[in-house]
Amino acid sequence: MNKRLLCHIIGNVVRVCGALMALPIIVSLILRSGDTMPLVLSMLIALAVGTALALIQPRRDTLRAREGFAIVAFSWIIVSFLGGLPFYFSGYVPSLVDCFFETVSGFTTTGATILTDVEALPKGLLFWRSFTHWAGGMGVLVLSLALIPKMGARSIHLMRAESPGPSTDKLVPRVANNAKILYEIYVAISLFMVAALLFCGMDLYDALVHMFGAAGTGGFGTYADSIAHFNSAAVDIVVGVFMALFGVNFSIYYFLIRRNWKAAFGNSELRWYLGILLSVSCIIAVNIMPMYGGNFFTSLRYSFFQCSSIMTTTGYATADFDLWPQLSRVLLVTLMFIGASAGSTGGGLKVVRVQLLLKSMVRDIRRTVHPKSVNTVKLDGHTVDESILSGVQGFFFAYFLILILATVVVSLDGFSFETNFTAVIATLSNIGPGLGMVGPTGNFAAFSDVSKLVLSLCMLIGRLEIFPVLMLVSPSAWRK
Amino acid sequence: MNKRLLCHIIGNVVRVCGALMALPIIVSLILRSGDTMPLVLSMLIALAVGTALALIQPRRDTLRAREGFAIVAFSWIIVSFLGGLPFYFSGYVPSLVDCFFETVSGFTTTGATILTDVEALPKGLLFWRSFTHWAGGMGVLVLSLALIPKMGARSIHLMRAESPGPSTDKLVPRVANNAKILYEIYVAISLFMVAALLFCGMDLYDALVHMFGAAGTGGFGTYADSIAHFNSAAVDIVVGVFMALFGVNFSIYYFLIRRNWKAAFGNSELRWYLGILLSVSCIIAVNIMPMYGGNFFTSLRYSFFQCSSIMTTTGYATADFDLWPQLSRVLLVTLMFIGASAGSTGGGLKVVRVQLLLKSMVRDIRRTVHPKSVNTVKLDGHTVDESILSGVQGFFFAYFLILILATVVVSLDGFSFETNFTAVIATLSNIGPGLGMVGPTGNFAAFSDVSKLVLSLCMLIGRLEIFPVLMLVSPSAWRK
Repeated sequence: MNKRLLCHIIGNVVRVCGALMALPIIVSLILRSGDTMPLVLSMLIALAVGTALALIQPRRDTLRAREGFAIVAFSWIIVSFLGGLPFYFSGYVPSLVDCFFETVSGFTTTGATILTDVEALPKGLLFWRSFTHWAGGMGVLVLSLALIPKMGARSIHLMRAESPGPSTDKLVPRVANNAKILYEIYVAISLFMVAALLFCGMDLYDALVHMFGAAGTGGFGTYADSIAHFNSAAVDIVVGVFMALFGVNFSIYYFLIRRNWKAAFGNSELRWYLGILLSVSCIIAVNIMPMYGGNFFTSLRYSFFQCSSIMTTTGYATADFDLWPQLSRVLLVTLMFIGASAGSTGGGLKVVRVQLLLKSMVRDIRRTVHPKSVNTVKLDGHTVDESILSGVQGFFFAYFLILILATVVVSLDGFSFETNFTAVIATLSNIGPGLGMVGPTGNFAAFSDVSKLVLSLCMLIGRLEIFPVLMLVSPSAWRK
Repeated sequence: MNKRLLCHIIGNVVRVCGALMALPIIVSLILRSGDTMPLVLSMLIALAVGTALALIQPRRDTLRAREGFAIVAFSWIIVSFLGGLPFYFSGYVPSLVDCFFETVSGFTTTGATILTDVEALPKGLLFWRSFTHWAGGMGVLVLSLALIPKMGARSIHLMRAESPGPSTDKLVPRVANNAKILYEIYVAISLFMVAALLFCGMDLYDALVHMFGAAGTGGFGTYADSIAHFNSAAVDIVVGVFMALFGVNFSIYYFLIRRNWKAAFGNSELRWYLGILLSVSCIIAVNIMPMYGGNFFTSLRYSFFQCSSIMTTTGYATADFDLWPQLSRVLLVTLMFIGASAGSTGGGLKVVRVQLLLKSMVRDIRRTVHPKSVNTVKLDGHTVDESILSGVQGFFFAYFLILILATVVVSLDGFSFETNFTAVIATLSNIGPGLGMVGPTGNFAAFSDVSKLVLSLCMLIGRLEIFPVLMLVSPSAWRK
């Protein structure tokens, strides 16, 4: 492990994080929200720490897969700690563990909160809190679509970008260019969303803050009752649709810009993603109809919003789905497992992994019938390499193992099985709310510090797709 | 699919089932329990149906993997229906769905019950109910250790039997001989257990009935408070230890008889199985100590019994573990997932599968660090074939998928998430009790008929190791 290079690059990431704090400072100055000082102080600390680290000059310039993953993981941790300082200095969140949890939740675009009264915080801090989602979303896109494929790891993201076939259809192959295109698409959709929200009558501050949460598929808002606060069907539809758009593989948008309709609409993950989202929305709409005066369209408004919010792992709410019938609640938990598309800002297992797991299962059944037959798994007309299949199956087990282990630790706090189990899913899949105590009207404040740190780790593990984090605890990664 | 051969063999299985009903008839005559008539009537029906099916003569004698699996699956279903008739005719269980559920639960050695007052049933019926566990256990042993390996399916059981190396160490290769050896071991340990229970002061009837439940890792008893009824530390220890013995791969006993100590004790699944069982017992003992007067040995008595009961998927109880602290409850749920050893009468994922999944995960982490390295997974010093690894990973996903789908359907009944989720685990892993409403003092009576049938199907799917049942719903299995 090239530790000097690690420090150097992480230092630069931390400096960028410090520079980004200029935005909430400007907001707090304009709105006179009285939280300028804690933000300025945190910014200075971040810039100082970042510069100190960046001054360490690497002796060699080689960047292997392990260094890449280590940089991403440690950057996320350090930036989450420093990014949480404004909450601490302002006195609104007196526990450093809570500040860390809240900021990890922001940067990993999870949206789980320890705040019991979000509306008490000044607007500069809330702007920063939501902005971490948007910045985190950028980080995820570059990680999953630009960095991971370049590092030679077996990757489902890579497969998606390659599947349309001829090399001219690939995203421009250099990381820097890839990142630039992704950022442009991300910024463009974000701006469209702000415009749409302004059109619905939202003020600029609310529009920006809620766009941040939707674009990063995070879910932090500024009101205790989330999007329900606006009490507007138009806002529900705009946010619901844009959340769904941010859960699509960003390669698809690139293909659309290039007018490569075949590559964009021939993508089976997109069809599955939309198919699951719409069909579960309809089932839940029927299931909750009695709660909404028997009106299918009213209940569809709430069910589509919630399904889009949960499946994209955003976590906004327009209704307290914890009060919905058991069937709807379990279907939402199922969507939590599935998650959004690969190469989006969303988390979870990802639709393409679920597709590959199901296709592998069908193949195993066929093998039981015809033990000697040779069967391959195909996706979008291309044979999927066995190493990718085994990687996906391994990923699934690792996800489940971490889910169980974290649930065991969190259960030491003594809350209900439902609360513990869904709290871990909600953090591991970067969703935010779960069921029970951590439902849409609840929060994570009551957990012990140990549980909060374990859940913070789950957010990081989920965000970095598990193996990069597991790698860092493996001794062989640190050997010369 | 050779349907005539299917009918012929299933008919013979059904005749055996009918013949076995002679045992509870004898018991009811000796004890004058007044339930002879329903048993005799059911026996006649079973013999008639069996003979009618057996009269169908097959045109060809070829038995392929698919016919083997179909025979096992359909035998289990038909035998469960016919075996449930005594409960129906006696009037104690007025619903045929309930009778089917109870008998599937018996033959699959699950032990989940719909009876709200088990002590109300006459002793002949209760004898039959428990005897189905013992008969089911025999079926499972032959299925997993004698039949499946002969059918050419990729099998973890086969691997276990082969792993010790030279072919002289293998179980005798012919199915009939294999089955005979297994039956002898099974009967011998069963007799030891009856002797031990008689020695503890139990009467012969209770000793037999509770041996049936432990040997088959089923869990049906004759008292509302299960083994706690006897209120005896000696009984707790005997039952606890014998449950653990029946959860060991039966090949190990064969090696012991052959004095092949190396093969027996060099088996890593055995070490893992005992290691997990004992360490979780100790953790839970510490966790529940405050409930048992702070006495470690008293709490260990209850925790070991419960861990042995749950891990071997038996389901007996000496305490209402649903009232234990959250940590203990979640650890028990974790044991439910793991299950017993392959090639035992127990259910669940099986320890060897968990071993292989963990080893695959470690390999995947190593691959993340060194993307180009070649890594193989080894077990007991032998390299595990990639097709077995991928089969195990596929099995795990299939298990999880069925768990989620069944939970969705069962949640239509509106009970809590904990109840639904653990009810499905408890049936899919053939355990019996879960948490909440289906905890050790609860039962499955309140579920709707649809849920009961889905849970019955889960018991069958779990017992037949998933793929044989999924195969039967695949069209290609039925094509000529």
